[in-house]
Amino acid sequence: MTNKKNISVCFTTDQFEKYADGKSTVVVVDLLRATSVISTAFECGVLAIIPVRTLEEALRYKNVKNHIIAAERNTLPIEGFDYGNSPYHYINADVKGKTLVLTTTNGTNAILLAKEHKVITASFVNIEAVTNYLVNDNNNNIIILCSGWKGFFNLEDPIFAGALAEKLLESNQFSSTCDSMQAAIQIYSSGKANLFEYLSNSSYRNRNNSDDVIKDTHFCLNPTINSTIVPIFDNEKLIKA
Amino acid sequence: MTNKKNISVCFTTDQFEKYADGKSTVVVVDLLRATSVISTAFECGVLAIIPVRTLEEALRYKNVKNHIIAAERNTLPIEGFDYGNSPYHYINADVKGKTLVLTTTNGTNAILLAKEHKVITASFVNIEAVTNYLVNDNNNNIIILCSGWKGFFNLEDPIFAGALAEKLLESNQFSSTCDSMQAAIQIYSSGKANLFEYLSNSSYRNRNNSDDVIKDTHFCLNPTINSTIVPIFDNEKLIKA
Repeated sequence: MTNKKNISVCFTTDQFEKYADGKSTVVVVDLLRATSVISTAFECGVLAIIPVRTLEEALRYKNVKNHIIAAERNTLPIEGFDYGNSPYHYINADVKGKTLVLTTTNGTNAILLAKEHKVITASFVNIEAVTNYLVNDNNNNIIILCSGWKGFFNLEDPIFAGALAEKLLESNQFSSTCDSMQAAIQIYSSGKANLFEYLSNSSYRNRNNSDDVIKDTHFCLNPTINSTIVPIFDNEKLIKA
Repeated sequence: MTNKKNISVCFTTDQFEKYADGKSTVVVVDLLRATSVISTAFECGVLAIIPVRTLEEALRYKNVKNHIIAAERNTLPIEGFDYGNSPYHYINADVKGKTLVLTTTNGTNAILLAKEHKVITASFVNIEAVTNYLVNDNNNNIIILCSGWKGFFNLEDPIFAGALAEKLLESNQFSSTCDSMQAAIQIYSSGKANLFEYLSNSSYRNRNNSDDVIKDTHFCLNPTINSTIVPIFDNEKLIKA
């Protein structure tokens, strides 16, 4: 067990202060949909992403050259913003070379919450790239931070945390006795045969099961893009690691 | 879905304030070992149990007539106390008619934390009795409060929460879209074929795998006592409902 790097999983942003150590690499997950959108936007040519907490902060960038602004609250897009929290807003859109300013209900807050650490973002869009990055990330321990829903546990982020933890453990460079990591792996194992069906009674689905969100959910669970980019938070922006 | 009672599962005491509504019935679970001990002590003839937060509070009852005191910190018994946090301390012991004053690392704090609600305690020792009680508990919604470990998620309490939630849903009187309840049911389903083995790499087992704790763990997961008593918190004491 010696010299292996540790993995822990934090299920909610409310609990993060119990896991924070100022040294670990934090992997932020907001599977539905912010961290899936972030990876998609980078793949579609966005140069950098500025996560902000409030609509007001985002609106300050509205007419700034080469910046586009996107917002989501309670699963819905917001009037006055160019883009929302759907991966399909970025695919085949005119975003190449732009800086995206993004504010969402949970994911962008989770990134800012952890910013005293090295922070990267992950989803099924870039799970391979993130795994490779973490395997080669010196001796840093890892905290997988599930964005959850307004401080509550959600079902979808632990699914991804379990999938990522499973891949990391396979590399034989990591170990863990973190109970929430073990639970995340079990949750992923229970659902992986059909993640969409597995989430059919989840709070997310109950909150918004519009055609658009269903389409986004399919993309986030089984993305058609495999991104090699690892977004890393640096100087108030996510850039390519 | 109408008229069905709601079930939610709160994974840690730190999160309880997000679930507390002042109206729901709260089912406190500290499977290893406090709520298993509480049921066992009642079955062995204890009349009432006073949960207290500190060793000092418990010690005040040391020479009070018909009172016995018990303490546990970090899985270990404490010098100066008559009893600890093992079910076997009460089985065949001289506890009939006594009031037990109990302080443990997590479970007793969880009971006190929830005391503005109707609070009952549950474990595999009394799961049938608790299920029957809750099915007949008027129209109260239910919060299953996992005691966890010092505010962290643990693996064993959600196992029990999942087992109880599954039984409640079978009664057809309950419904839920709570993501942590769904996760708890999945965790229980994954592990129920061999719960002891399932917990083999849990933080609890890593913290203390002494013969005594292993013996207690077997009891708590597959108790040899089936209690019909539902402990309910009333006027600073747990009594029989």
